[in-house]
Amino acid sequence: MYKFNPTPRILMGPGPSDAHPRVLKAMATPLIGHLDPEFVKMMDEVKEMTQKTLLTKNHLTFVVSAPGSAGMETCLVNLLEPGDECIIGINGVFGGRMAEIAERCGAKVHKVEVEWGKIIEPSQIKAALEKCPNPKLVALVHAETSTGACQPLQEISDIVHNANSLLMVDAVTSYCGVPLKVDEWGIDALYSGTQKCLSAPPGLSPVTFSDKAMNALENRKTKVQSWFLDLSLVKNYWAGAKRAYHHTAPVSSVYAYHTALNLVLEEGLENRWNRHKTVHLHLKEQLENLGFKYLVEEQYRLPNLNSVFLPEGLEEAKLRSQLLNDFNIEVGGGLGAFAGKIWRIGIMGESCTKNHVNTLIGALKEII
Amino acid sequence: MYKFNPTPRILMGPGPSDAHPRVLKAMATPLIGHLDPEFVKMMDEVKEMTQKTLLTKNHLTFVVSAPGSAGMETCLVNLLEPGDECIIGINGVFGGRMAEIAERCGAKVHKVEVEWGKIIEPSQIKAALEKCPNPKLVALVHAETSTGACQPLQEISDIVHNANSLLMVDAVTSYCGVPLKVDEWGIDALYSGTQKCLSAPPGLSPVTFSDKAMNALENRKTKVQSWFLDLSLVKNYWAGAKRAYHHTAPVSSVYAYHTALNLVLEEGLENRWNRHKTVHLHLKEQLENLGFKYLVEEQYRLPNLNSVFLPEGLEEAKLRSQLLNDFNIEVGGGLGAFAGKIWRIGIMGESCTKNHVNTLIGALKEII
Repeated sequence: MYKFNPTPRILMGPGPSDAHPRVLKAMATPLIGHLDPEFVKMMDEVKEMTQKTLLTKNHLTFVVSAPGSAGMETCLVNLLEPGDECIIGINGVFGGRMAEIAERCGAKVHKVEVEWGKIIEPSQIKAALEKCPNPKLVALVHAETSTGACQPLQEISDIVHNANSLLMVDAVTSYCGVPLKVDEWGIDALYSGTQKCLSAPPGLSPVTFSDKAMNALENRKTKVQSWFLDLSLVKNYWAGAKRAYHHTAPVSSVYAYHTALNLVLEEGLENRWNRHKTVHLHLKEQLENLGFKYLVEEQYRLPNLNSVFLPEGLEEAKLRSQLLNDFNIEVGGGLGAFAGKIWRIGIMGESCTKNHVNTLIGALKEII
Repeated sequence: MYKFNPTPRILMGPGPSDAHPRVLKAMATPLIGHLDPEFVKMMDEVKEMTQKTLLTKNHLTFVVSAPGSAGMETCLVNLLEPGDECIIGINGVFGGRMAEIAERCGAKVHKVEVEWGKIIEPSQIKAALEKCPNPKLVALVHAETSTGACQPLQEISDIVHNANSLLMVDAVTSYCGVPLKVDEWGIDALYSGTQKCLSAPPGLSPVTFSDKAMNALENRKTKVQSWFLDLSLVKNYWAGAKRAYHHTAPVSSVYAYHTALNLVLEEGLENRWNRHKTVHLHLKEQLENLGFKYLVEEQYRLPNLNSVFLPEGLEEAKLRSQLLNDFNIEVGGGLGAFAGKIWRIGIMGESCTKNHVNTLIGALKEII
């Protein structure tokens, strides 16, 4: 009655990225129950592999049964209570979204806002801490998907911990694409997504909480406002000995995530980071030859998400449609302040190959 | 490094149920972007098919990007504000969960509690309305997955609407398995799941809101406490002309849902209801011959979820493990008050065939 024939696309936008055939095959594997001993074993393995790829020993390391935005909300609703203060760095859409959610938690939000495409400087966090010396948490976006900026975290982490606060990080677009070291960098709460550099379908959000973050959760005075995202309940399913039923886990998505994590470990995490860097340099050279200009300063550029202004005189929406309709290539448009102004070209996970780049550049040369 | 070899199971528990090969194949289809015009068209089709299968014309008919429990939370957080009053019928785990979430919304909850396995009588709702004459909503579980009871809704619907309240319904286990008529029965807000009688993988929650429910949402004094589930934002992606980006939709799960809905429409909704009834009668006869006894009174029994006490002297946990390990058949144990006491045998969607029943009964005859 309703046809199901999606056209094969080459995904080079801000996510989802192309999925590996093994991941797609995992998605098609017949289901088992979410309390089946085999599924429980798979959850243990998913936890171990997530720990290995996030470089953390955090006991509470798992996946939220919903996309990255729900992972963001998970971190905030569990750590913030009405009246808590927090500092949130805003240099794009996703920092703004964190502030919006934190306000809905009843927290007092101190915003550190910089121009989109820039990073938050340690001095700016210091200045914010002078006005708000004891925030419950400081939240930053490691990889701002709306601009392609990569936020350095180590220096700010020390500043945050000296203030006895928790460091919360959005790593949706950085996880498995660029260096991300949860324990070494002292990240207390982190969420990501599966559809970026991990190249699994969207629908899950890997999350990790340090012991300090767990401690904050355990010492709450009020219940977490979301039942679905309440980690004091979810942890009994994901990390408890009894595996108490909380909600029905999205079994097939966990299959895909399990397989995607295996692919990362088979390649090696550092090799994967290096691949993203190498392919980025190839893309950058080609794009600059065509007259594209990067939004973000070179040292803070994400290799995997290339935000570029188009050569003058080109109509971005028209060209983007041509790429999709004539070449089946998806690139992303700008968000918010950059809508209609930039392209966001993703080379993430399985979409991060020189062949992808050459395919895109060939098409661009024809239509520009 | 970590093997991925889930054992094929026969799923006859409370969900997930067996998925049709076409649904599994849809899951394995290469991804397209969540803003791709082809995906947007698919969202429109999903909306239309969901309307057809829920028998509603509601404009806001879509899927929440997370499992049924998130659908439950979606309905409650959007309709309830701090200080609102509501009446919630509790005759099992899921009524209790609704009350728990409503309390987290800051609502004053009037509980109508009956013995698990029974239904809520219209007189009990009337009595509750005497104590609380103007509740924002009255919430009931149509199909209580923890007990197998099917709640009649039509008479109560009139009572609720005479009190100028909204009727909210949990249809996780009833959707596409037993008669469910949203518009005819005057249901204002409803959520379901995909992994029961629809036989798609878990991970999405179909939701519909009547105009009256939308009106309540539009007239809120406070923001919805969840950003991820805020329908005033989500509707711009699912039902708005501009398809404003909100979060990354779980593309593959929507593929599977689209395909599963097609299968329902190909079979015909009434034929599907009748199939569940016919297979139920076959199962019932066989189970009673073996000495199993139904928990729920015959007229209120869900055909698709059979809650039964085991014949005396049998150890339920041991037998359930034997079924899983020796025959690869999953049946569900009891929840809450019925843990260790009953089995929940699901014959839902693709798992609702006489062959499934005969396979189960054959295994039971061998191990009892």
